[in-house]
Order: sequence, then C-alpha cells, then structure tokens
Amino acid sequence: MKKHIVLLPGDGIGQEVIHSAQGALTALAEEYNHTFTFETHDIGGTAVDLHETPLPPSTLEACKNADAVLLGAVGGPKWDNYPSHLRPEKGLLAIRKELGLFANLRPVKGFKKLLHASPLKEEVVKDSDLLIVRELTGGLYFGTPSERRDNGDAVVDTLAYTRHEIERIVDNAFKYAQIRRKHLTSVDKANVLESSKLWREVVEEKKAEYPDVTVVHQLVDSAAMKLITNPASFDVIVTENMFGDILSDEASVLTGSLGMLPSASLREDGFGLYEPVHGSAPDIAGQGIANPLAMILSASLMLKYSFHMEKEAAVLEEAVHSVLEDGYHTGDLHIIDGHKVGTEELTNKIIEFIKCK
Amino acid sequence: MKKHIVLLPGDGIGQEVIHSAQGALTALAEEYNHTFTFETHDIGGTAVDLHETPLPPSTLEACKNADAVLLGAVGGPKWDNYPSHLRPEKGLLAIRKELGLFANLRPVKGFKKLLHASPLKEEVVKDSDLLIVRELTGGLYFGTPSERRDNGDAVVDTLAYTRHEIERIVDNAFKYAQIRRKHLTSVDKANVLESSKLWREVVEEKKAEYPDVTVVHQLVDSAAMKLITNPASFDVIVTENMFGDILSDEASVLTGSLGMLPSASLREDGFGLYEPVHGSAPDIAGQGIANPLAMILSASLMLKYSFHMEKEAAVLEEAVHSVLEDGYHTGDLHIIDGHKVGTEELTNKIIEFIKCK
Ligand SMILES: CC(C)[C@H](C(=O)O)[C@@H](O)C(=O)O
Ligand SMILES: CC(C)[C@H](C(=O)O)[C@@H](O)C(=O)O
Repeated sequence: MKKHIVLLPGDGIGQEVIHSAQGALTALAEEYNHTFTFETHDIGGTAVDLHETPLPPSTLEACKNADAVLLGAVGGPKWDNYPSHLRPEKGLLAIRKELGLFANLRPVKGFKKLLHASPLKEEVVKDSDLLIVRELTGGLYFGTPSERRDNGDAVVDTLAYTRHEIERIVDNAFKYAQIRRKHLTSVDKANVLESSKLWREVVEEKKAEYPDVTVVHQLVDSAAMKLITNPASFDVIVTENMFGDILSDEASVLTGSLGMLPSASLREDGFGLYEPVHGSAPDIAGQGIANPLAMILSASLMLKYSFHMEKEAAVLEEAVHSVLEDGYHTGDLHIIDGHKVGTEELTNKIIEFIKCK
Repeated sequence: MKKHIVLLPGDGIGQEVIHSAQGALTALAEEYNHTFTFETHDIGGTAVDLHETPLPPSTLEACKNADAVLLGAVGGPKWDNYPSHLRPEKGLLAIRKELGLFANLRPVKGFKKLLHASPLKEEVVKDSDLLIVRELTGGLYFGTPSERRDNGDAVVDTLAYTRHEIERIVDNAFKYAQIRRKHLTSVDKANVLESSKLWREVVEEKKAEYPDVTVVHQLVDSAAMKLITNPASFDVIVTENMFGDILSDEASVLTGSLGMLPSASLREDGFGLYEPVHGSAPDIAGQGIANPLAMILSASLMLKYSFHMEKEAAVLEEAVHSVLEDGYHTGDLHIIDGHKVGTEELTNKIIEFIKCK
C-alpha cells in the first residue's frame, strides 16, 4: 500500500522522537512492501517562532491531504508567557478541531519490566489494561460563550454538546469494547450536570445495539478513585472532553511508564493524528537521550487504526516489547540489570527487530 | 461555651455515625465545661421519604439558627431512580448553596497503622499531608443556563464565576497555607478555560498579600498525575468546584483510609457543615459495624473551625489516633494484630480516651 504521512515534530524532544518513528516506519515499509512517503511541517512553539502562529495554514493544508499525521510534542517554557493565541497548545487544539478529530484513544497497559517503577503496588496495578475514549472536540474546550463579563469581574465558559456528538463517541467506544473485553464504563456527573444526563441517556439508548457489551455508569469523582484502587477493573472508559483530559492523565501514571504511552485522535472515517502522551521535555531536548518508544507505539496505532495494517502494527508493538525484554531503555526508565542507551541506539534495536522478524 | 449543633444523620450509616459523634462531643463538653445542645433533622433520602423533599424548609431553618451542622451521609440505591429534584444529593447541593458554604476543606493525611492498605507504595505515600480547598458554591454546579436545547438534541452547562467568588476562596486557601507549610498549589486549566485565566490572575494578584506563602500554578491534568506520583509534594491545593470534586476524591484513596477522612464546608464567618467523606454505605447500615472515626474527625474540624476550640479539637483527633494505635478498628479497616470491634465499642474507646485525658 502507498500512504502519505505528515510529520509534525513540534517542540523539544518532538524532533528526535519523530525521527525515530520515521526510521521504524521506513524499515517496516521495506519489509512488508509498502510505500510510505513523508512530509514535515511546523506546529506549536516552533511554528510560532517561524510563522507567528502555532498552526500555520500550510501545515493544516498538508494534514488535510495526508493519510495520517504523526505529532511529536508541543510546548516549552520559551512560549509560556506568550499571549494566548500564540501558545503552542493552541496549535494542538486548533488542529484537532479543524481536522474533526473527535475521538481520542488513550490505551494504558503496563510493561512487565517497568511495573516496578509504578507508584502503585504491583499487585494493584499488574493486570491493568484499559482504554480511555475521550471526546475531543466538544464540551468546555470549544463551547461558547467563553468570555469575561461585567468589566472583567465575572467569567463564563460553556460546556456544550449536541446529541450527535455524544452518539458518535459513544458508538465508537462500544465498538472498541466489542473487540476488547466487552466492558464499557461511561463516566459522567449526572447527579449535577444536564450535559451528563443527556450523555447517560445516549449510552442507555445505544446499549441495545451492542448487546454483547456490559455497561456501567460511573460518576467522575468515583472513577478518579477507582482508577487508583482498582485499575484492573476497567476495560473501556468513555467520557466527555474535560473529564477525559483529567482521567487519562491520571491513568497515564499508574503503570510507571508515562514515557511509553501512545495516543490516537481519530475522525469518523479513520483518518487520525497520533502522538505520544508525554510532553516536549525541553530539559533533555537535543541531547539524543529522549525515549522514542511512545512515539513508535503511536505509529503502531496509526498502522492499526488509519491504515488497517494489523500485522505491521503488531510487529511494531512487539518490537517495543522485545527491546524492553532485552533490557534496553533510555534514561527516563529504569530496568533492573538493563542497558541504558540513547535515542538512536534504541531506535536501531527496534529496526533490527523489524528486519529480523 | 454554649453551642447549639444541628445533627443531620441523613441516610444509611449516617444515623449510626452521627450518634457516635454526639456521644464523643457530649463527653468532651463534660470534661471541658461546655454546653453542647443538639437538635436532629432530616435530609437526603430519609427526608424525601418523610417530607417529599431532600431538604425540608424546617431542616434549613434549623441549620440557619445553629452554631454548626454535622451531617452523616446522604444517598442509597432506594432513591437512585427518583426524579432529579427528589434525589438525596440535591439536598446536599441545596444546603451548601442556601447556607453559603463556599469553602470545602478536605484534609488528607495517612495513619501509620493504616498505610499498609494504601494502593500506593508506602515510600510514595508515607509523608503525605495535604489540604484541598475546593470552591463549593460556584462553577459548573450552579451556573446558568444549564438546560436542554433544540428539542433535546443539544445541551449546555455553564461554568460561571465572579471575581469575588474566586477572591474569597483564594484568600481562604492562602490563610490555611500560612498556618501549614506555607505552600499553595493553585489548580486550573488556564491553557483552555477563560474562567481559569481569571482564576490565575486573582491568585497572582493575591500573592502579594501573603509573601510568606510560595505559590505554584498547576494544570488540572498534571495535578491529577502528581497526586499519585508525588502526593507528599503538596501542602494546600486550591481549585474550583468541579476540579475540586474530582481531585479531592482522587486524593481520598491515596492513604488507604477513605473511611477515616473528614470534611468541612465553611461560610465566611466560620459557620460550617461537617461531614465524613465516605458515603452512606447502605450495604452495612443498621448492623452496628460502621466506622465512626471520619464523623468524629469531622466533629473535631467543627470544634476547630467553627468554635475555635483548638484544644478540644486536638483531644478528639488524638483520641482517634490513640484508638488506632491501640489496634482498635471497624471491619472496613485492617490493622495488623489489631482488634476488630463494632461502632459502639469503638465509640466507647474514644469516650474513654476523652475522659482519661
Ligand atoms: C495541551 C492541552 C490543551 C491538551 C488538552 O487539554 O487537551 C493536553 O492536556 C492533552 O490532553 O492533549
Ligand atoms: C453528591 C455530589 C453532588 C457531591 C458533589 O459533587 O459535590 C459529592 O460528590 C461531594 O463531593 O460532596
């Protein structure tokens, strides 16, 4: 297959990890007879510096014409005090909205060799394998009005959803549950919010279409507790944008390997943007020591969700597991009796695995 | 001193634990020459059953005339499918709003004998001692419009704050930081929400008035992570209503002793409502096995914050620590080589401590 991929390295270590993912994808293409073409564009702080906007029109245009997008990371202290419209993360919010990427998938699963670094006891976290499906283009993030009032003495934001927006994300989540362990937890705050009541209604209506999936409704505060006390009890979690932001970050630290977590942001037709959960880590940028594995796992999600290359996606995932099992890791991780290596060496190990597979 | 206390047992084990707190307070009053008078009223599901409303006017009136209010717990499966205005938690929301209880204090601190039950590793959680100051009468909970639109095909909730509402909770939090370890973490989502930008501005303005307090701003998603990876790094956390709901419940499970956590909801003049963080536990209600310690610690907060009885508050707190150190506990907890007892026996141990002190 021929696929055209836009690379958006962004800021900090984004540059380095995107390079690794490109290397791994190129090796995969050779082995499995695909043609992947790449085109690199600016986003985030780097784009602010060069084009005075965190999302240049040319970047957006290129993404629209691509088969999928890989993003490194955006942000850094340099831009922290820039005015709101010039903040790197505005580029991220804008690209999600402009491309219609309404479904954010955040899988969380432990790696055996890394579980020892979890803040949780191993017996609590060990069987965790969950997927958070977060609505990404609605709710408080984009609702209007969102403004100062009364000469600046008051302020409002708006949590807005249409039934259609809720239906499509809920449908999505049911489908993921069907190909996983068939259990869906819908998280809301239906004892307080009108939007949550509609959310709960939609989930109740939809469940007839997915009779093989068991559904529970859980309040967001209680979900925040249960993620810690019993993370292994979750399979798929579906929730609105802001709750999803908080819960998916909470979930990301459970297994002790934040540096290993990928994410996917998808449109209805399967087009998507893929990025690691970790940030731009400006403190270690440019030193050749960044961990490329979350970016490589994000590329694996791209192969699976946007290109339907199940086998190739599995090979990339296996490659990551295999290098860890062999004890190779970057400095952000610790593996007992392991070998600490740099970004390039770790990437080469991944490529070796792909070639020898 | 003479103080008049309204008791709102509410539902489930609320009845039993309120009784314990009353017993402990009566013993304290005798020892320290106070006169505490008590008056009991209905709230929550019990009030729905008896008065067809979760907050009867007579209950509200009694609270307004009291020096402080102790609340057990509200809710239970019996009322789960009642229409919205007859849900027990509506009574809770209404009483907070009607009494102007804008500051919710949620201290989280481990108990040495119970830390082994934490889902977190002991070395991660052991020095945690934090206080979440949650704004309780604004934001998404009470903002309007909060309604269905377009024939039910759309919905909005409103996150509204006035500068005044933010200022008073932030002032409060700074003051608690001053009498604690002088560190304040203000949690917001200023990279997305207009309301958070105003929040951050107010915190920046206020900090000049509290030069002895160090302040950091943290995004809510990153705070949700850090509560797990490094809970001991927090002293006082201040945040808006919904973020506070989520983060305070998240924090409540860190130390492995949810059944031990008290809370206070305060008005500007020090009047307050005090309740345990745990729920009404309908499954064990009426069996005489409920854990009364969180309710007793809530009574201790009442002595401190509403009555300024520092010494008496400390005695109640010491009593709780002492019975645990002696190994006494109810069935929800586990103490290695401890003695499992019922609500009444544990309460008697507390009373003994008060009398012998
Ligand atoms: C950078 C920020 C606006 C963004 C969000 O809140 O969605 C980030 O936290 C995320 O989760 O991708
Ligand atoms: C019962 C519910 C409305 C309430 C809230 O969300 O405030 C509860 O979760 C709490 O934190 O006291």
